[in-house]
Amino acid sequence: MSARLNAQMAFLNEADKLKSVIRATTLCDGSRHENSGEHSWHIALYALILGEHAPVGVDINRVIKMLLLHDLVEIDAGDAPIFGDHDIALMEADEAKAADRIYGLLPTDQSRDLRALWEEFEAAATPDAIFAKSLDRFQPPNQNLMSNGGSWSDYKVSFGTIEARVGSKIARGAPTLWDWLKPKIEDWFARR
Amino acid sequence: MSARLNAQMAFLNEADKLKSVIRATTLCDGSRHENSGEHSWHIALYALILGEHAPVGVDINRVIKMLLLHDLVEIDAGDAPIFGDHDIALMEADEAKAADRIYGLLPTDQSRDLRALWEEFEAAATPDAIFAKSLDRFQPPNQNLMSNGGSWSDYKVSFGTIEARVGSKIARGAPTLWDWLKPKIEDWFARR
Repeated sequence: MSARLNAQMAFLNEADKLKSVIRATTLCDGSRHENSGEHSWHIALYALILGEHAPVGVDINRVIKMLLLHDLVEIDAGDAPIFGDHDIALMEADEAKAADRIYGLLPTDQSRDLRALWEEFEAAATPDAIFAKSLDRFQPPNQNLMSNGGSWSDYKVSFGTIEARVGSKIARGAPTLWDWLKPKIEDWFARR
Repeated sequence: MSARLNAQMAFLNEADKLKSVIRATTLCDGSRHENSGEHSWHIALYALILGEHAPVGVDINRVIKMLLLHDLVEIDAGDAPIFGDHDIALMEADEAKAADRIYGLLPTDQSRDLRALWEEFEAAATPDAIFAKSLDRFQPPNQNLMSNGGSWSDYKVSFGTIEARVGSKIARGAPTLWDWLKPKIEDWFARR
């Protein structure tokens, strides 16, 4: 039992480093950039509050677990800002290597199960993962609206880019949320 | 539906402020103090990983939800460090007022249900709440061990104080975790 708990605590202590991975999005008050640890908390809370907007059959408890884990690979692979240009194949290879190391700290059964949950999130092919991905895309534009631009200003993006890279993903898993958000973003660009 | 989503998003945008509430505990690398948003993520992850150490009958999904919510009142009431001296009655009154305002942002049914979940956590009288409280007490000493002292050094506490204020709460809901942690803390004090 002690060896098992040692492994679990090595993983949880390693996870602490996610609080030092900085994202492109700022806090709502624009005072600083958000880190991936507090972002993971916030979107897990999004799932708890907005679960009723998920399609029938989505298991919110699984979605919350996915969201708690979803960014852990960034400890090694870093955050890839949504409006940046990335070599997708290289990024996926880096993240797979990060997952080997980080989930590998856990006892074998948990390592297998939780890595599978993260891979399900990444693949975005099940109803739970599709909804989880929608929430991961839905939070940043809300933060940008609150902070009057945030990463939209930093990356000089247009509404068209937001609709293509963010809106399409939100609409796929949570059309109600995109219907609510879209006019707010259009209005922000119109008033700029 | 739109009014309902407006209320939910007002709550989620307000929750963002928890990322600016600073705790006594530092990150594992000691580089800065932790905030209550990232702390909430970390202990929800603790629940996901350490659920098997909970007494039979504990519902880990409910525990995770409690932990996502447990510190929200700190947005108005502030964090009360475990080794500080506090006027308990005053603190509870401040937190109740904070809960009125913050949970009051939600649609009525969610406001009632989630406030009840927070009150259950605070009362620490159900198996789920007792285990959630144990995890809330279990994370900071692990961070202190990693950062070589952390809030123990800042507050100049003895092992006896830690055992009384922290160990007793961990042991109540998760005796396995306290049995694992206690000798590590004793050893840290012995080597100081």
